[in-house]
Amino acid sequence: MNGTFRICDGFWTRYQDLVCDTVIPYQRQVLTDAVPGAVKSHAIENFRIAAGLAEGEFYGWVFQDSDVAKWIEAAAYSLARRPDPALEADLDELIAIIGKAQGEDGYLNTYFTLGNQEKRWTNLQEAHELYCSGHMMEAAVAYFEATGKTSLLEIMKKNADCIASVFGRGKRRGFPGHPEVELALVRLFDATGERKYLELAEYFLEERGTQPNFYVWEKENRDWTVWNSDPNDTAYTQNDAPVRQQKHAIGHAVRAVYLYTGMAAVARKTGDEGLANACRRLWDNITQKRMYITGGIGSTHVGEAFTADYDLPNDTVYAESCASIGLIFFARQMLQLEADSRYADTMERALYNCVLAGLSLDGKRFFYVNPLEVNPDYAGKIETHRHVLPVRPPWHGCACCPPNIARLLASLDRYAWHENEDAAYCDLFIGGEYRLDGGSVRVKTAYPYGDQIRYVIKGDIRKKIALRIPAWSETWSITVNGRSVCPEISHGYAMLTGLGDGDEVVLRLDLTPRKCYAHVLVRENQGGVCLQRGPLVYCLEGVDNPFDLRAVRIAAQSEIRVLPWEELLGGIVPLEADGFVLRGEEALYSFERPKPSPARLKLIPYYAWCNRGENQMTVWMKEL
Amino acid sequence: MNGTFRICDGFWTRYQDLVCDTVIPYQRQVLTDAVPGAVKSHAIENFRIAAGLAEGEFYGWVFQDSDVAKWIEAAAYSLARRPDPALEADLDELIAIIGKAQGEDGYLNTYFTLGNQEKRWTNLQEAHELYCSGHMMEAAVAYFEATGKTSLLEIMKKNADCIASVFGRGKRRGFPGHPEVELALVRLFDATGERKYLELAEYFLEERGTQPNFYVWEKENRDWTVWNSDPNDTAYTQNDAPVRQQKHAIGHAVRAVYLYTGMAAVARKTGDEGLANACRRLWDNITQKRMYITGGIGSTHVGEAFTADYDLPNDTVYAESCASIGLIFFARQMLQLEADSRYADTMERALYNCVLAGLSLDGKRFFYVNPLEVNPDYAGKIETHRHVLPVRPPWHGCACCPPNIARLLASLDRYAWHENEDAAYCDLFIGGEYRLDGGSVRVKTAYPYGDQIRYVIKGDIRKKIALRIPAWSETWSITVNGRSVCPEISHGYAMLTGLGDGDEVVLRLDLTPRKCYAHVLVRENQGGVCLQRGPLVYCLEGVDNPFDLRAVRIAAQSEIRVLPWEELLGGIVPLEADGFVLRGEEALYSFERPKPSPARLKLIPYYAWCNRGENQMTVWMKEL
Repeated sequence: MNGTFRICDGFWTRYQDLVCDTVIPYQRQVLTDAVPGAVKSHAIENFRIAAGLAEGEFYGWVFQDSDVAKWIEAAAYSLARRPDPALEADLDELIAIIGKAQGEDGYLNTYFTLGNQEKRWTNLQEAHELYCSGHMMEAAVAYFEATGKTSLLEIMKKNADCIASVFGRGKRRGFPGHPEVELALVRLFDATGERKYLELAEYFLEERGTQPNFYVWEKENRDWTVWNSDPNDTAYTQNDAPVRQQKHAIGHAVRAVYLYTGMAAVARKTGDEGLANACRRLWDNITQKRMYITGGIGSTHVGEAFTADYDLPNDTVYAESCASIGLIFFARQMLQLEADSRYADTMERALYNCVLAGLSLDGKRFFYVNPLEVNPDYAGKIETHRHVLPVRPPWHGCACCPPNIARLLASLDRYAWHENEDAAYCDLFIGGEYRLDGGSVRVKTAYPYGDQIRYVIKGDIRKKIALRIPAWSETWSITVNGRSVCPEISHGYAMLTGLGDGDEVVLRLDLTPRKCYAHVLVRENQGGVCLQRGPLVYCLEGVDNPFDLRAVRIAAQSEIRVLPWEELLGGIVPLEADGFVLRGEEALYSFERPKPSPARLKLIPYYAWCNRGENQMTVWMKEL
Repeated sequence: MNGTFRICDGFWTRYQDLVCDTVIPYQRQVLTDAVPGAVKSHAIENFRIAAGLAEGEFYGWVFQDSDVAKWIEAAAYSLARRPDPALEADLDELIAIIGKAQGEDGYLNTYFTLGNQEKRWTNLQEAHELYCSGHMMEAAVAYFEATGKTSLLEIMKKNADCIASVFGRGKRRGFPGHPEVELALVRLFDATGERKYLELAEYFLEERGTQPNFYVWEKENRDWTVWNSDPNDTAYTQNDAPVRQQKHAIGHAVRAVYLYTGMAAVARKTGDEGLANACRRLWDNITQKRMYITGGIGSTHVGEAFTADYDLPNDTVYAESCASIGLIFFARQMLQLEADSRYADTMERALYNCVLAGLSLDGKRFFYVNPLEVNPDYAGKIETHRHVLPVRPPWHGCACCPPNIARLLASLDRYAWHENEDAAYCDLFIGGEYRLDGGSVRVKTAYPYGDQIRYVIKGDIRKKIALRIPAWSETWSITVNGRSVCPEISHGYAMLTGLGDGDEVVLRLDLTPRKCYAHVLVRENQGGVCLQRGPLVYCLEGVDNPFDLRAVRIAAQSEIRVLPWEELLGGIVPLEADGFVLRGEEALYSFERPKPSPARLKLIPYYAWCNRGENQMTVWMKEL
């Protein structure tokens, strides 16, 4: 039902070009172990060995195959954006290898094919078999949609059929330790129209969390392990209750949001209100109790997990890039389930802040963990902060995040708009052209740094155009052909009716910088404030503020000044505030309150931090 | 050279009685596994089996013997305080068992004797052999000093001789993974006058941190392990540099302070200024960069360790009771090395706050970890706070702390005064009678709740009497026989000369409650303040303050009111301050600053917290 969007945007075209020109070729090199200094991948070589094209042994994590799948998916989006015969030929070659690596029965997983054949399907809790299949199904659908070629789609249909022949009611019991296949099977259903894939997704969802605990049975009935995971740690795998009864976002954050995305996707297809209600509850729990202001989720590295309501430490945080990407997937499914701007608001928050921060401006370095406060004296050095790196490394031993960032950014056109029978909803303010039934909408904007979004209608579009009014915009206005209008607001969207060929709509948002406060029960942000301008969360970086950031306070009464555009850091609008640097006694404890000296604070958008070397950074500042 | 002190004090006699009447008998029962619900100990049974008096196998940690040693030491101090023939008979019986458990060659360690004979001395890094010997040496000296009986002293001299026959220059190389034997050997030297014990202590100290790394060699030359510890993790065992070059307090906090205590003890005996300077540097690093305001040390449960300067999280803290006890040992050695009130100030801080907080008021429950902020929603529940228990358990699987608290409190008389050739120094303000050469000093006080300490001289004391002027006392005065005097102040002590029989000295301190601030680089205490009155650090407890403590602020301009004495919690003087409870939006993030409603805050001394059930607690409060 959705139209297609082609991005042509001052902010995002640079990122999409970066992904196509740099990130995708760079990651292709990494996957072939051709980048000196990057952690060994071997992921493509595993497929070559499984295909009989090379000698050797499997190397890597049990989920190593998924790095290749995510890269193919990203490359497919790149092809959809602009033709690249060499890339397409490379993909065809890689797909041919994957085809050869597949078993007669459709089975596909190099970890198991290379020396672990007899262990197939015996360790769903740990071994990521269904997860890897899910990612390759997503890649297959993306490549089919980009090129019309069915080569990978056929491979993955055969693989899905293999899975369906093993699992389901009346067959073997099971569901994946790491959700992913559920949402992928819905995509496969969308691409092929074959309802059995939707039903298999439903089966995996409904089986999770039922009694008796399948993972206990599974562990008792096998003689091998990957990490000797405790099957009774049901939280980690969201296996503590049937999914439609779940109320709190728990366990491994990426697993959680991939699961919820699958639930929402199935609910959308089946109209299942019970499942949809569970999604709404889990959404609210995440976004109203367990999410960083950057859209990061997962408060602890122990299990890469959610912890408890309002527990949001800024410096020992996890906030994995992949988890925010999963939150964006979840948001998109919820938006398509029901058009409500709160889903798009959070999608925007996670995209402009956490996901972009995961990538260096040169496209070659990646954060796995996205801290809101960094002190290089501790980060990466002391045990409690070991996982919080003060600079982005070029690759990761567990390389889930880099290709995940690539596939999201390369497919960003799919997140900007969505439609239902009534209206076309503009969820993200990105320049380009949206083609829908009967015509198109041209979007021009300097967003997120400009406050206007200009829409020009072409042709005879019959649907309403719904423009998101972000919750952060204190005031806003809309003109149609220069005349102010007061459209109906429905669930956070301004509903514009009766637009015709040549009409020009201008949405003007309020980019006045705003001080943002956390809920009073977030202990880490007690007395703290952060600055937001439009969708962008700002931060202090040491390089701009030559004092120890721990001693910095922002003046409670300070106005926030918008500084002129700077070419720095890919082009940004910095902010300035009045503040103080505290100077106290040398002693560790003293009876003298530290004394403030006035200081001018310069803030940059959080997404651009850590592109000028290792230094201190903080999003939240204490007020004085 | 020191005199003897007998405590008779409103505050401390209750604690010493509690230790003698309750803690020591209770712990005796625990060590015999006679307390339902307490974690299994088996520590005495291990000795009975090793003595051939029972059948069975060793059970417990490799350092299980030390629980018995520390209990004997505590019981010996109890006997020194007041005769108890039944306890003495029990000890004699236990010592006889220990004697039978000792090898012909003097070796004594039930873990190794029971089934691990061939592993002796092959794993000094992990196996705590020298540590257990050290604790039993301390017990032996204490029992000898209490009763004059040499039974255990002879056993431990034989054990020390056994150790000396194995280790030393020209013999086997080695030094303990967990320091303790060094300080114990100095005590054995003090009790016996045999210099070889001092020399063995020096050997162990000097060998530590030298190249090549002994623990690497050791691991390569054995085929067993306790915890598969990394010998290259030199920080954990303070093995990163020769001790006289060490500058920062690192690694396992208890090991660190036991080591530094041994260094200071040796430096005091040998007059070694190089060693003394290392002790001063390490003291300063702990107390000026790495210590909680309660005197707790060790910022992380990972390795129970120091982390980095100014890293002092209040809620994920470790602050093990044993570590503060070790800090008190270190302080006492430093005081005897050089009379400077800063050592006694810290000794007092750790004693009145962290150590006392480790024990419930009924003497039957113990904290291992002493948090400065507890929220029962997180504490003991989420991974990052799993080690922070919201209530004291009755015993611990690793039971180092309970008997350590008992032995410190039972021997507190030894910490109140010390002497050098010139003066007798009153380090802690505790009522009782100090007997020294030529006479005695009677001390009467209601400290820490009363501000006067009255000293009455008896006999012909030739030394000066030196009274500590605590750094927290903004003003103070001294009268002699009712007349104000202005004595010389030397290193924080008021030096009183020419006192004779019948003279009465009154020291009046300033118990005005004070707001205390942390160094500006302690991020967790940014914008925070805590209250101190005299030596006591105060805290807010939920039971007295019926709001979520995360939403509480103290008014920056509030006066601090001293409330009347209450019989509550063993008798306390609560404080009261004006504050606020914040009420904000329900949303996780909002552009509205939370609004303060006035609230009256009631504070109790930190040492008395958690005696009224599970509830929130915080030492530090944000100012508003």
